[in-house]
Amino acid sequence: MTIDIRAEPTARETEFASLYAQVQQFYADQLQLLDAHDAERWAETFTEDAVFEIPALSEPVRGRDGLISTLRRNQEHQQRDGARLRRWIGMLDVRPQLDGTLHTRCSALVYMTPHGGESKVLHVCAMEDVLVRSRSTWRTRHRRVTRDDLA
Amino acid sequence: MTIDIRAEPTARETEFASLYAQVQQFYADQLQLLDAHDAERWAETFTEDAVFEIPALSEPVRGRDGLISTLRRNQEHQQRDGARLRRWIGMLDVRPQLDGTLHTRCSALVYMTPHGGESKVLHVCAMEDVLVRSRSTWRTRHRRVTRDDLA
Amino acid sequence: MTIDIRAEPTARETEFASLYAQVQQFYADQLQLLDAHDAERWAETFTEDAVFEIPALSEPVRGRDGLISTLRRNQEHQQRDGARLRRWIGMLDVRPQLDGTLHTRCSALVYMTPHGGESKVLHVCAMEDVLVRSRSTWRTRHRRVTRDDLA
Repeated sequence: MTIDIRAEPTARETEFASLYAQVQQFYADQLQLLDAHDAERWAETFTEDAVFEIPALSEPVRGRDGLISTLRRNQEHQQRDGARLRRWIGMLDVRPQLDGTLHTRCSALVYMTPHGGESKVLHVCAMEDVLVRSRSTWRTRHRRVTRDDLA
Repeated sequence: MTIDIRAEPTARETEFASLYAQVQQFYADQLQLLDAHDAERWAETFTEDAVFEIPALSEPVRGRDGLISTLRRNQEHQQRDGARLRRWIGMLDVRPQLDGTLHTRCSALVYMTPHGGESKVLHVCAMEDVLVRSRSTWRTRHRRVTRDDLA
Repeated sequence: MTIDIRAEPTARETEFASLYAQVQQFYADQLQLLDAHDAERWAETFTEDAVFEIPALSEPVRGRDGLISTLRRNQEHQQRDGARLRRWIGMLDVRPQLDGTLHTRCSALVYMTPHGGESKVLHVCAMEDVLVRSRSTWRTRHRRVTRDDLA
Protein backbone atom coordinates (compact mmCIF):
# COMPACT_ATOMS: atom_id res chain seq x y z
CA MET A 1 0.00 0.00 0.00
CA THR A 2 1.68 3.22 -1.14
CA ILE A 3 0.17 6.31 0.37
CA ASP A 4 0.96 9.83 -0.65
CA ILE A 5 -1.02 12.49 1.05
CA ARG A 6 -1.19 16.18 0.30
CA ALA A 7 -1.38 17.56 3.80
CA GLU A 8 -1.18 16.47 7.42
CA PRO A 9 -4.52 16.01 9.13
CA THR A 10 -5.58 18.84 11.39
CA ALA A 11 -6.02 18.22 15.14
CA ARG A 12 -9.76 18.18 14.53
CA GLU A 13 -9.44 15.52 11.82
CA THR A 14 -7.24 13.35 14.05
CA GLU A 15 -9.80 13.68 16.86
CA PHE A 16 -12.64 12.78 14.53
CA ALA A 17 -10.79 9.67 13.29
CA SER A 18 -10.21 8.60 16.88
CA LEU A 19 -13.89 9.00 17.79
CA TYR A 20 -15.03 7.26 14.61
CA ALA A 21 -12.89 4.18 15.36
CA GLN A 22 -14.01 4.11 19.00
CA VAL A 23 -17.66 4.17 17.99
CA GLN A 24 -17.20 1.39 15.42
CA GLN A 25 -15.50 -0.76 18.08
CA PHE A 26 -18.25 0.12 20.58
CA TYR A 27 -21.01 -1.12 18.28
CA ALA A 28 -19.07 -4.29 17.41
CA ASP A 29 -18.87 -5.06 21.15
CA GLN A 30 -22.45 -4.07 21.95
CA LEU A 31 -24.11 -6.02 19.15
CA GLN A 32 -21.91 -9.08 19.66
CA LEU A 33 -23.16 -9.22 23.27
CA LEU A 34 -26.73 -8.92 22.01
CA ASP A 35 -26.30 -11.72 19.44
CA ALA A 36 -24.77 -13.89 22.19
CA HIS A 37 -27.76 -13.22 24.54
CA ASP A 38 -25.35 -11.94 27.21
CA ALA A 39 -28.07 -9.78 28.74
CA GLU A 40 -26.19 -8.34 31.73
CA ARG A 41 -23.05 -7.33 29.87
CA TRP A 42 -25.14 -5.99 26.98
CA ALA A 43 -27.18 -3.84 29.40
CA GLU A 44 -23.92 -2.39 30.80
CA THR A 45 -23.22 -0.83 27.40
CA PHE A 46 -26.18 1.46 28.14
CA THR A 47 -26.35 4.10 30.89
CA GLU A 48 -28.38 3.16 33.96
CA ASP A 49 -31.14 5.57 32.92
CA ALA A 50 -31.09 4.63 29.22
CA VAL A 51 -34.20 4.96 27.06
CA PHE A 52 -34.62 2.62 24.06
CA GLU A 53 -37.44 3.26 21.57
CA ILE A 54 -38.04 -0.12 19.95
CA PRO A 55 -40.24 -0.67 16.88
CA ALA A 56 -43.48 -2.57 17.52
CA LEU A 57 -43.42 -1.59 21.22
CA SER A 58 -45.81 1.23 22.15
CA GLU A 59 -43.70 2.35 25.14
CA PRO A 60 -39.92 2.85 25.24
CA VAL A 61 -37.88 0.44 27.37
CA ARG A 62 -36.29 2.25 30.33
CA GLY A 63 -33.22 1.41 32.40
CA ARG A 64 -30.93 -1.61 32.47
CA ASP A 65 -33.47 -3.87 34.19
CA GLY A 66 -35.99 -3.08 31.46
CA LEU A 67 -33.37 -3.86 28.79
CA ILE A 68 -32.45 -7.16 30.41
CA SER A 69 -36.04 -8.39 30.70
CA THR A 70 -36.84 -7.33 27.10
CA LEU A 71 -33.78 -9.19 25.80
CA ARG A 72 -34.67 -12.33 27.82
CA ARG A 73 -38.21 -12.32 26.40
CA ASN A 74 -36.85 -12.10 22.85
CA GLN A 75 -34.40 -14.89 23.56
CA GLU A 76 -37.22 -17.23 24.60
CA HIS A 77 -39.05 -16.55 21.35
CA GLN A 78 -35.95 -17.26 19.34
CA GLN A 79 -35.12 -20.48 21.15
CA ARG A 80 -38.59 -21.71 20.32
CA ASP A 81 -37.95 -20.81 16.67
CA GLY A 82 -34.47 -22.39 16.68
CA ALA A 83 -33.10 -19.45 14.69
CA ARG A 84 -29.87 -17.51 15.15
CA LEU A 85 -29.91 -13.73 14.72
CA ARG A 86 -26.94 -11.60 13.68
CA ARG A 87 -27.18 -7.80 13.87
CA TRP A 88 -25.15 -5.58 11.59
CA ILE A 89 -24.78 -1.83 11.49
CA GLY A 90 -23.24 0.34 8.79
CA MET A 91 -23.36 3.71 7.06
CA LEU A 92 -22.30 5.17 10.41
CA ASP A 93 -22.74 8.92 10.86
CA VAL A 94 -20.96 10.30 13.96
CA ARG A 95 -21.66 13.89 15.08
CA PRO A 96 -19.76 15.15 18.13
CA GLN A 97 -21.77 17.65 20.18
CA LEU A 98 -20.65 20.66 22.20
CA ASP A 99 -21.61 18.91 25.45
CA GLY A 100 -19.21 16.01 24.76
CA THR A 101 -21.90 13.52 23.72
CA LEU A 102 -22.00 11.90 20.29
CA HIS A 103 -25.10 11.79 18.13
CA THR A 104 -24.89 8.78 15.83
CA ARG A 105 -27.12 7.53 13.06
CA CYS A 106 -26.69 4.31 11.13
CA SER A 107 -28.46 1.64 9.14
CA ALA A 108 -29.02 -1.69 10.87
CA LEU A 109 -29.75 -5.15 9.51
CA VAL A 110 -30.87 -8.30 11.27
CA TYR A 111 -29.97 -11.59 9.55
CA MET A 112 -31.80 -14.72 10.62
CA THR A 113 -30.44 -18.22 10.07
CA PRO A 114 -32.46 -21.28 11.07
CA HIS A 115 -30.38 -24.29 12.10
CA GLY A 116 -29.55 -26.14 8.89
CA GLY A 117 -31.59 -23.68 6.83
CA GLU A 118 -31.18 -20.69 4.56
CA SER A 119 -30.21 -17.26 5.91
CA LYS A 120 -32.32 -14.24 5.14
CA VAL A 121 -32.60 -10.56 6.00
CA LEU A 122 -35.21 -10.32 8.73
CA HIS A 123 -35.29 -6.55 9.31
CA VAL A 124 -33.86 -3.43 7.70
CA CYS A 125 -33.75 -0.55 10.19
CA ALA A 126 -32.41 2.91 11.00
CA MET A 127 -30.82 3.47 14.42
CA GLU A 128 -30.17 6.78 16.16
CA ASP A 129 -28.16 6.95 19.39
CA VAL A 130 -26.95 9.46 21.93
CA LEU A 131 -23.65 8.18 23.31
CA VAL A 132 -22.01 9.49 26.48
CA ARG A 133 -18.49 8.90 27.70
CA SER A 134 -18.39 7.09 30.99
CA ARG A 135 -15.19 5.92 32.63
CA SER A 136 -13.09 5.61 29.42
CA THR A 137 -15.83 3.89 27.44
CA TRP A 138 -18.95 4.97 25.57
CA ARG A 139 -22.49 4.05 26.61
CA THR A 140 -25.84 4.49 24.89
CA ARG A 141 -28.06 6.94 26.78
CA HIS A 142 -30.83 7.09 24.20
CA ARG A 143 -31.63 4.84 21.23
CA ARG A 144 -34.36 5.02 18.64
CA VAL A 145 -34.77 2.22 16.12
CA THR A 146 -37.23 2.39 13.22
CA ARG A 147 -38.00 -0.49 10.86
CA ASP A 148 -38.30 0.13 7.12
CA ASP A 149 -41.31 -2.19 6.78
CA LEU A 150 -43.27 -0.26 9.42
CA ALA A 151 -42.30 3.21 8.15
CA MET B 1 -11.21 -2.22 26.24
CA THR B 2 -7.57 -2.80 27.17
CA ILE B 3 -5.20 -1.82 24.43
CA ASP B 4 -1.51 -2.51 24.38
CA ILE B 5 0.25 -1.53 21.25
CA ARG B 6 3.81 -2.23 20.21
CA ALA B 7 4.69 0.97 18.45
CA GLU B 8 3.36 4.43 17.79
CA PRO B 9 1.76 4.95 14.40
CA THR B 10 3.86 6.75 11.81
CA ALA B 11 2.70 10.13 10.48
CA ARG B 12 1.62 8.30 7.32
CA GLU B 13 -0.50 5.84 9.30
CA THR B 14 -2.16 8.66 11.28
CA GLU B 15 -2.93 10.47 8.02
CA PHE B 16 -4.37 7.33 6.49
CA ALA B 17 -6.62 6.73 9.52
CA SER B 18 -7.87 10.31 9.26
CA LEU B 19 -8.70 9.95 5.57
CA TYR B 20 -10.32 6.56 6.08
CA ALA B 21 -12.68 7.94 8.75
CA GLN B 22 -13.50 11.00 6.64
CA VAL B 23 -14.42 8.84 3.66
CA GLN B 24 -16.62 6.54 5.76
CA GLN B 25 -18.46 9.58 7.15
CA PHE B 26 -18.72 11.04 3.63
CA TYR B 27 -20.45 7.95 2.25
CA ALA B 28 -22.79 7.73 5.28
CA ASP B 29 -23.88 11.32 4.55
CA GLN B 30 -24.11 10.91 0.78
CA LEU B 31 -26.12 7.69 0.77
CA GLN B 32 -28.42 8.86 3.58
CA LEU B 33 -29.34 11.85 1.38
CA LEU B 34 -29.97 9.48 -1.53
CA ASP B 35 -32.20 7.17 0.54
CA ALA B 36 -34.12 10.24 1.76
CA HIS B 37 -34.65 11.48 -1.84
CA ASP B 38 -33.03 14.82 -0.93
CA ALA B 39 -31.97 15.39 -4.53
CA GLU B 40 -30.39 18.85 -4.24
CA ARG B 41 -28.28 18.13 -1.19
CA TRP B 42 -27.29 14.73 -2.59
CA ALA B 43 -26.16 16.37 -5.84
CA GLU B 44 -23.98 18.79 -3.83
CA THR B 45 -21.90 15.83 -2.64
CA PHE B 46 -20.70 15.58 -6.26
CA THR B 47 -18.56 18.13 -8.10
CA GLU B 48 -20.41 20.36 -10.58
CA ASP B 49 -18.83 18.49 -13.50
CA ALA B 50 -19.27 15.01 -12.00
CA VAL B 51 -19.63 11.95 -14.22
CA PHE B 52 -21.65 8.95 -12.93
CA GLU B 53 -21.57 5.69 -14.89
CA ILE B 54 -24.77 3.91 -13.83
CA PRO B 55 -25.57 0.28 -14.67
CA ALA B 56 -28.41 -0.21 -17.18
CA LEU B 57 -27.92 3.32 -18.57
CA SER B 58 -26.06 3.43 -21.89
CA GLU B 59 -24.73 6.97 -21.29
CA PRO B 60 -23.13 8.33 -18.10
CA VAL B 61 -25.06 10.98 -16.17
CA ARG B 62 -23.20 14.33 -16.25
CA GLY B 63 -23.33 17.27 -13.84
CA ARG B 64 -25.51 18.06 -10.86
CA ASP B 65 -28.61 18.81 -12.95
CA GLY B 66 -28.31 15.41 -14.61
CA LEU B 67 -27.95 13.75 -11.19
CA ILE B 68 -30.99 15.53 -9.80
CA SER B 69 -33.25 14.62 -12.71
CA THR B 70 -32.08 10.97 -12.65
CA LEU B 71 -32.78 10.73 -8.92
CA ARG B 72 -36.24 12.31 -9.34
CA ARG B 73 -37.12 9.81 -12.08
CA ASN B 74 -36.09 6.89 -9.83
CA GLN B 75 -38.08 8.35 -6.96
CA GLU B 76 -41.27 8.37 -9.04
CA HIS B 77 -40.80 4.69 -9.90
CA GLN B 78 -40.30 3.83 -6.25
CA GLN B 79 -43.30 5.77 -5.04
CA ARG B 80 -45.43 3.83 -7.51
CA ASP B 81 -43.97 0.60 -6.09
CA GLY B 82 -44.41 1.72 -2.48
CA ALA B 83 -40.98 0.33 -1.59
CA ARG B 84 -38.25 1.86 0.52
CA LEU B 85 -34.63 1.50 -0.58
CA ARG B 86 -31.61 1.52 1.72
CA ARG B 87 -28.10 1.67 0.25
CA TRP B 88 -25.15 0.21 2.05
CA ILE B 89 -21.45 0.28 1.22
CA GLY B 90 -18.62 -1.72 2.73
CA MET B 91 -15.27 -3.35 2.09
CA LEU B 92 -13.98 0.17 1.52
CA ASP B 93 -10.59 0.49 -0.20
CA VAL B 94 -9.12 4.02 -0.01
CA ARG B 95 -6.07 4.88 -2.14
CA PRO B 96 -4.68 8.41 -1.75
CA GLN B 97 -3.15 9.71 -5.01
CA LEU B 98 -0.20 12.02 -5.59
CA ASP B 99 -2.51 14.75 -6.90
CA GLY B 100 -4.45 14.85 -3.61
CA THR B 101 -7.49 12.96 -4.91
CA LEU B 102 -8.66 9.67 -3.42
CA HIS B 103 -9.44 6.61 -5.48
CA THR B 104 -11.95 4.47 -3.63
CA ARG B 105 -13.47 1.11 -4.36
CA CYS B 106 -16.16 -0.61 -2.35
CA SER B 107 -19.00 -3.10 -2.46
CA ALA B 108 -22.51 -1.71 -2.44
CA LEU B 109 -25.84 -3.28 -1.56
CA VAL B 110 -29.37 -2.02 -2.11
CA TYR B 111 -32.01 -3.38 0.28
CA MET B 112 -35.65 -3.02 -0.69
CA THR B 113 -38.50 -3.13 1.81
CA PRO B 114 -42.12 -2.90 0.67
CA HIS B 115 -44.46 -1.28 3.18
CA GLY B 116 -45.60 -4.06 5.53
CA GLY B 117 -43.63 -6.64 3.53
CA GLU B 118 -40.40 -8.60 3.65
CA SER B 119 -37.03 -6.97 3.01
CA LYS B 120 -34.71 -8.34 0.38
CA VAL B 121 -31.41 -7.60 -1.30
CA LEU B 122 -32.28 -5.89 -4.56
CA HIS B 123 -28.80 -5.31 -6.02
CA VAL B 124 -25.23 -6.31 -5.23
CA CYS B 125 -22.76 -3.89 -6.81
CA ALA B 126 -19.19 -2.65 -6.97
CA MET B 127 -18.58 1.11 -6.80
CA GLU B 128 -15.45 3.02 -7.82
CA ASP B 129 -15.07 6.73 -7.07
CA VAL B 130 -12.63 9.55 -7.59
CA LEU B 131 -13.02 11.93 -4.63
CA VAL B 132 -11.64 15.46 -4.59
CA ARG B 133 -11.29 17.78 -1.62
CA SER B 134 -13.37 20.91 -1.98
CA ARG B 135 -13.71 23.48 0.77
CA SER B 136 -13.02 21.15 3.75
CA THR B 137 -15.23 18.35 2.45
CA TRP B 138 -14.92 15.57 -0.12
CA ARG B 139 -16.96 15.38 -3.31
CA THR B 140 -17.34 12.65 -5.92
CA ARG B 141 -15.90 13.73 -9.27
CA HIS B 142 -16.29 10.39 -11.01
CA ARG B 143 -18.31 7.31 -10.10
CA ARG B 144 -18.66 3.96 -11.79
CA VAL B 145 -21.13 1.40 -10.47
CA THR B 146 -21.37 -2.14 -11.83
CA ARG B 147 -24.04 -4.66 -10.85
CA ASP B 148 -23.11 -8.28 -10.16
CA ASP B 149 -26.17 -9.62 -12.00
CA LEU B 150 -25.22 -7.76 -15.19
CA ALA B 151 -21.51 -8.59 -15.04
CA MET C 1 -19.48 18.82 9.08
CA THR C 2 -19.01 20.85 12.27
CA ILE C 3 -17.04 19.00 14.89
CA ASP C 4 -16.57 20.14 18.45
CA ILE C 5 -14.77 17.74 20.67
CA ARG C 6 -14.27 17.89 24.40
CA ALA C 7 -10.78 16.55 24.68
CA GLU C 8 -7.83 15.58 22.51
CA PRO C 9 -7.46 11.88 21.93
CA THR C 10 -4.81 10.17 24.03
CA ALA C 11 -1.81 8.55 22.34
CA ARG C 12 -3.49 5.21 22.92
CA GLU C 13 -6.68 6.34 21.20
CA THR C 14 -4.74 7.69 18.21
CA GLU C 15 -2.88 4.38 17.95
CA PHE C 16 -6.12 2.42 18.13
CA ALA C 17 -7.70 4.52 15.37
CA SER C 18 -4.66 3.91 13.18
CA LEU C 19 -4.81 0.15 13.70
CA TYR C 20 -8.57 0.05 13.17
CA ALA C 21 -8.28 1.81 9.79
CA GLN C 22 -5.38 -0.42 8.72
CA VAL C 23 -7.34 -3.55 9.51
CA GLN C 24 -10.44 -2.33 7.64
CA GLN C 25 -8.26 -1.58 4.59
CA PHE C 26 -6.54 -4.98 4.97
CA TYR C 27 -9.83 -6.87 4.83
CA ALA C 28 -11.07 -4.80 1.89
CA ASP C 29 -7.92 -5.81 -0.03
CA GLN C 30 -7.94 -9.44 1.07
CA LEU C 31 -11.58 -10.15 0.30
CA GLN C 32 -11.49 -8.26 -3.00
CA LEU C 33 -8.67 -10.60 -4.11
CA LEU C 34 -10.77 -13.58 -3.00
CA ASP C 35 -13.86 -12.39 -4.90
CA ALA C 36 -11.66 -11.85 -7.98
CA HIS C 37 -10.22 -15.41 -7.73
CA ASP C 38 -6.69 -13.96 -7.63
CA ALA C 39 -5.42 -17.02 -5.75
CA GLU C 40 -1.70 -16.16 -5.54
CA ARG C 41 -2.12 -12.58 -4.37
CA TRP C 42 -4.88 -13.63 -1.96
CA ALA C 43 -2.60 -16.30 -0.46
CA GLU C 44 0.11 -13.67 0.09
CA THR C 45 -2.22 -11.88 2.53
CA PHE C 46 -1.68 -14.91 4.81
CA THR C 47 1.59 -15.92 6.48
CA GLU C 48 3.43 -18.83 4.87
CA ASP C 49 2.48 -21.10 7.79
CA ALA C 50 -1.13 -19.86 8.04
CA VAL C 51 -3.89 -22.12 9.38
CA PHE C 52 -7.46 -21.60 8.12
CA GLU C 53 -10.32 -23.46 9.84
CA ILE C 54 -13.06 -23.55 7.22
CA PRO C 55 -16.64 -24.64 7.90
CA ALA C 56 -17.67 -27.95 6.33
CA LEU C 57 -14.02 -29.07 6.07
CA SER C 58 -12.97 -31.58 8.71
CA GLU C 59 -9.28 -30.53 8.60
CA PRO C 60 -7.90 -26.97 8.60
CA VAL C 61 -6.19 -25.76 5.43
CA ARG C 62 -2.47 -25.17 6.04
CA GLY C 63 0.02 -22.92 4.27
CA ARG C 64 -0.22 -20.82 1.13
CA ASP C 65 -0.19 -23.81 -1.24
CA GLY C 66 -3.14 -25.29 0.63
CA LEU C 67 -5.00 -21.98 0.42
CA ILE C 68 -4.37 -21.65 -3.32
CA SER C 69 -5.58 -25.16 -4.14
CA THR C 70 -8.69 -24.75 -1.93
CA LEU C 71 -9.56 -21.47 -3.63
CA ARG C 72 -9.05 -22.98 -7.12
CA ARG C 73 -11.36 -25.89 -6.27
CA ASN C 74 -14.08 -23.48 -5.10
CA GLN C 75 -13.64 -21.41 -8.23
CA GLU C 76 -14.32 -24.44 -10.44
CA HIS C 77 -17.55 -25.14 -8.55
CA GLN C 78 -18.66 -21.53 -8.96
CA GLN C 79 -17.85 -21.38 -12.66
CA ARG C 80 -20.05 -24.43 -13.19
CA ASP C 81 -22.82 -22.65 -11.26
CA GLY C 82 -22.31 -19.37 -13.15
CA ALA C 83 -22.70 -17.40 -9.93
CA ARG C 84 -20.68 -14.48 -8.63
CA LEU C 85 -19.83 -14.33 -4.93
CA ARG C 86 -19.16 -11.15 -2.96
CA ARG C 87 -17.82 -11.38 0.60
CA TRP C 88 -18.53 -8.72 3.16
CA ILE C 89 -17.26 -8.29 6.70
CA GLY C 90 -18.51 -5.95 9.40
CA MET C 91 -18.97 -5.45 13.13
CA LEU C 92 -15.17 -5.53 13.34
CA ASP C 93 -13.67 -6.03 16.79
CA VAL C 94 -9.90 -5.33 16.93
CA ARG C 95 -7.93 -6.31 20.04
CA PRO C 96 -4.23 -5.46 20.07
CA GLN C 97 -2.16 -7.98 22.02
CA LEU C 98 0.97 -7.51 24.11
CA ASP C 99 3.03 -9.51 21.57
CA GLY C 100 2.16 -7.05 18.78
CA THR C 101 -0.39 -9.30 17.06
CA LEU C 102 -4.02 -8.33 16.60
CA HIS C 103 -6.92 -10.57 17.51
CA THR C 104 -9.91 -9.67 15.37
CA ARG C 105 -13.47 -10.91 15.33
CA CYS C 106 -16.13 -9.92 12.83
CA SER C 107 -19.32 -10.99 11.12
CA ALA C 108 -19.05 -12.11 7.51
CA LEU C 109 -21.62 -12.40 4.75
CA VAL C 110 -21.42 -14.07 1.38
CA TYR C 111 -23.77 -12.71 -1.29
CA MET C 112 -24.39 -14.83 -4.38
CA THR C 113 -25.64 -13.40 -7.66
CA PRO C 114 -26.37 -15.67 -10.63
CA HIS C 115 -25.83 -14.05 -14.03
CA GLY C 116 -29.08 -12.25 -14.88
CA GLY C 117 -30.70 -13.51 -11.68
CA GLU C 118 -31.60 -12.36 -8.18
CA SER C 119 -28.99 -11.84 -5.49
CA LYS C 120 -29.29 -13.57 -2.15
CA VAL C 121 -27.40 -14.05 1.09
CA LEU C 122 -25.66 -17.40 0.75
CA HIS C 123 -23.91 -17.62 4.15
CA VAL C 124 -23.90 -15.71 7.42
CA CYS C 125 -20.68 -16.35 9.36
CA ALA C 126 -18.43 -15.31 12.20
CA MET C 127 -14.70 -14.91 11.49
CA GLU C 128 -11.84 -14.80 14.00
CA ASP C 129 -8.30 -13.93 12.93
CA VAL C 130 -4.84 -13.57 14.37
CA LEU C 131 -3.04 -10.90 12.34
CA VAL C 132 0.71 -10.34 12.42
CA ARG C 133 2.67 -7.40 11.08
CA SER C 134 5.05 -8.38 8.35
CA ARG C 135 7.10 -5.87 6.38
CA SER C 136 4.73 -2.86 6.81
CA THR C 137 1.58 -4.85 6.11
CA TRP C 138 -0.67 -7.19 8.08
CA ARG C 139 -1.11 -10.88 7.29
CA THR C 140 -3.49 -13.51 8.64
CA ARG C 141 -1.66 -16.19 10.62
CA HIS C 142 -4.73 -18.01 11.86
CA ARG C 143 -8.37 -17.83 10.75
CA ARG C 144 -11.45 -19.59 12.05
CA VAL C 145 -14.76 -19.20 10.24
CA THR C 146 -18.03 -20.60 11.59
CA ARG C 147 -21.33 -20.61 9.70
CA ASP C 148 -24.56 -19.69 11.49
CA ASP C 149 -26.53 -22.45 9.74
CA LEU C 150 -24.10 -25.13 10.98
CA ALA C 151 -23.79 -23.77 14.54
